[in-house]
Amino acid sequence: MNELKTLARKHAIIKGILHHIEWDQETFMPEGGAESRADQIQWLAGHLHNAATSDEYKNALNKLIDIQTGTVKIDCSDSEKAALREWRKDFVKDTAIPLAFVEEFSALTSRALEAWKIARKENDFSKFEPFLEKIVEMNKRKAEFLGYSKSPYDALLDVYEPGLTADKVEKVFSLLKEKMPDFVRKIKNKPCHLSMRGPYSEQDQLHLSQEILKRMGYDFKHGRIDISTHPFSTSEHPTDCRVTTRLDKNDPISNILTTMHEGGHALYEMGLPAEHFGSPLAESVSLGIHESQSRFWETRIGLSLPFWKGFLPTLQKSLKGLENATPEEVYNFVNKVEPSFIRVESDEVTYPLHVILRFEIEKDLIEGKLKAADVPKRWNELMHKYLGVTPPDDAKGCLQDIHWSMGSFGYFPTYALGTMYSAQLFEKFEETFPDWSERVENGDLLFIKKWLNENIHRYGRQYSPEELLKKATGKEFSSEPFLRYIENKYINAG
Amino acid sequence: MNELKTLARKHAIIKGILHHIEWDQETFMPEGGAESRADQIQWLAGHLHNAATSDEYKNALNKLIDIQTGTVKIDCSDSEKAALREWRKDFVKDTAIPLAFVEEFSALTSRALEAWKIARKENDFSKFEPFLEKIVEMNKRKAEFLGYSKSPYDALLDVYEPGLTADKVEKVFSLLKEKMPDFVRKIKNKPCHLSMRGPYSEQDQLHLSQEILKRMGYDFKHGRIDISTHPFSTSEHPTDCRVTTRLDKNDPISNILTTMHEGGHALYEMGLPAEHFGSPLAESVSLGIHESQSRFWETRIGLSLPFWKGFLPTLQKSLKGLENATPEEVYNFVNKVEPSFIRVESDEVTYPLHVILRFEIEKDLIEGKLKAADVPKRWNELMHKYLGVTPPDDAKGCLQDIHWSMGSFGYFPTYALGTMYSAQLFEKFEETFPDWSERVENGDLLFIKKWLNENIHRYGRQYSPEELLKKATGKEFSSEPFLRYIENKYINAG
Repeated sequence: MNELKTLARKHAIIKGILHHIEWDQETFMPEGGAESRADQIQWLAGHLHNAATSDEYKNALNKLIDIQTGTVKIDCSDSEKAALREWRKDFVKDTAIPLAFVEEFSALTSRALEAWKIARKENDFSKFEPFLEKIVEMNKRKAEFLGYSKSPYDALLDVYEPGLTADKVEKVFSLLKEKMPDFVRKIKNKPCHLSMRGPYSEQDQLHLSQEILKRMGYDFKHGRIDISTHPFSTSEHPTDCRVTTRLDKNDPISNILTTMHEGGHALYEMGLPAEHFGSPLAESVSLGIHESQSRFWETRIGLSLPFWKGFLPTLQKSLKGLENATPEEVYNFVNKVEPSFIRVESDEVTYPLHVILRFEIEKDLIEGKLKAADVPKRWNELMHKYLGVTPPDDAKGCLQDIHWSMGSFGYFPTYALGTMYSAQLFEKFEETFPDWSERVENGDLLFIKKWLNENIHRYGRQYSPEELLKKATGKEFSSEPFLRYIENKYINAG
Repeated sequence: MNELKTLARKHAIIKGILHHIEWDQETFMPEGGAESRADQIQWLAGHLHNAATSDEYKNALNKLIDIQTGTVKIDCSDSEKAALREWRKDFVKDTAIPLAFVEEFSALTSRALEAWKIARKENDFSKFEPFLEKIVEMNKRKAEFLGYSKSPYDALLDVYEPGLTADKVEKVFSLLKEKMPDFVRKIKNKPCHLSMRGPYSEQDQLHLSQEILKRMGYDFKHGRIDISTHPFSTSEHPTDCRVTTRLDKNDPISNILTTMHEGGHALYEMGLPAEHFGSPLAESVSLGIHESQSRFWETRIGLSLPFWKGFLPTLQKSLKGLENATPEEVYNFVNKVEPSFIRVESDEVTYPLHVILRFEIEKDLIEGKLKAADVPKRWNELMHKYLGVTPPDDAKGCLQDIHWSMGSFGYFPTYALGTMYSAQLFEKFEETFPDWSERVENGDLLFIKKWLNENIHRYGRQYSPEELLKKATGKEFSSEPFLRYIENKYINAG
């Protein structure tokens, strides 16, 4: 086992370096450093691929588990068996893709990221279009390498959420599409007279982000928060998990919610068992489960009345012009339901519709039914169809997300899945802590982190996403808790 | 040539990544990330060593230049011949040191750096001592690997300043030791009534740093400035050269001079020909020449009256409480000569004595005549002997510099050498631009950068430090220009 662990640890170290320089690219790197950074990423990506696919690694793995059949060859604990199962799964996936492809893809996306930034800034889709076209082409080739039974898009989904297929997504989404428009129609926003008299400085807002992260149990000895165009969290090791936020100088509350979202991701990474660094036991199990952690914090805590009863005084102490705000006003403000253009700023009711739109565009691109050049038109059509609004420009439309520029197709559906998971987790959480709202109102958030540490984080990839969810909640995965939550909160209580 | 260039470029890419994560370690890395960072550095250092010493690299090099004899085997330009000569020199040096040693050394210094930070913060030498002891031992082993004819310290000097020996350093230093104390005795500081009413915020001070860097021709598209304990500049590629500064909230002028110093280093790296990235033609020639660039900007421009006549209005516009200051007062303030504890804050007259002290301690450590445990005592004795002052504690004494914690022995003497080089360069500069002081007074600094670009930066390692200096100034290296400058500025004009 030691030989394999040493090799896998090396792989994880390379991945950590890669994550670090990608973090820098989004936060502090001077613009002119992009070309050189692309070379660095390409070199590291090559080594990463090599570390996971070399004959040396294959032999070390095959001594412990039969790569062809998956039969474990040694006597070991259940968690070690799970680690071997996941190591093998990764190996099969990684060896399906040739090194030259990995390097080409990495170099392309590094440059595409810069093109996307400029296209978004200048509201000029044509500057990103050739990159999107190439990225779609490469994703099609990737799907062929990975293999699939029905749609090439299935192969891409499986990368982010093991076992997920376009058919399964469509099934979950059709239930949402069936129910959500009716909800949206029925919802009447409560009056909200909250006035925020900004501008609020970067410094003051970042200070508040730090404060909320500390209360959530985020350890600044092992992390930091900075500003980036698209907020994200990254981990180079469970001992160095950083987050970023995006600031709106007139709305300090959007920063708090973004921070809680990214903080939820970071707590997952910080909560992985560092002693297993390099093993699947110290890796997050899927993007959907990852998103369940961020959405748990952002929507189930950050959008709750008890939270604002507890946190508003801190906000008022730090920022001027909020003296007369009440928790109920902030609650009504953050829970306003309104079809809008930007996914990351959308309310929790319309949010899934943003994801459904992206899923449908992605799937058509990958299945060759849509060209990159036609994305803006299709985007606006679907926005009108699902949300009844049309973006004024592409910067607020199909250029808003970073994902495609990073080469990620099949990623978006996990966002909606994460929201469903978080709703199911929350029902169990509520059952476990009937007094949760009093505790949160009193400023205690640490018990939430501990519960998630205990029930999700510490397991790494020991169980599949579905098994983990069942272990934590005692129930099979269902989107009912989410629909129940929305109905209770916005319709029944309204 | 292409095969070698490709391999050398890979080497430079790895070095760039290494420089980047070391920059992060000093600027933004959370404290708890140090152990994981040490693993990353160790892995990269191993690959760096491998890229420069592999059989593949050796064969590619040996096709073009005979590694044993140094005979160039192909017909090529003078600059390509120079590159081959330097590539060979590096190869011989790099292959002298085994990979296991490189990795061990790298892991040790990464941890020593954290220990030094704590020791300095807590003013507790005992927390750094065991690391210093180990670092000295490893430097002795390094000297044995590299080989030397007289003192093991010669081998370490040669790493930073090719051709330099302890005897040569002692010769230059003995001339300084002979003249400087007499100068220091004769100097009478001019009265200075400059009052600075801080505290000045980090933000305002960093803004000023950015302003001065811009005027120097530093391109923020390819760089940035941040704060660190020990100011430094780093380059991961000529297109990404970053600097850091240290801020004193009560003295904004020390930040300006530090920024000019680090900016001088960065302009050298930015001025190297990016098209040769990976080749010695795109590398700085020596630490001494590097330091000549920083000292040129810091002392010959930043400590001059014309500069303050030009820059003071900007300072006054940005910072309050300096309204009544005159350029002459600032000039007298920055040129105050006074024996002090901290090298980086010392005046240009006593500065060389700080270096001489370090040189003598280092040499004794490496030659086994002094133990790490006895460094504080020896430090304080020499401070008293050369500067007539005794540090109140080790934080202001032997713990003040980062270098030993980074494993660098033989580095300090290049600081004094750089000062001598810069004085010789300045005599030529003054001859070339008889109107330099008028131009600087009018706020023009760009012509200085261009002259240094033209005469130093663009050559990379094409010539030896001595040859380069002679090419730029028309004269052999001598410490006379420095002594002449000090005598004229502080004695004759006083």
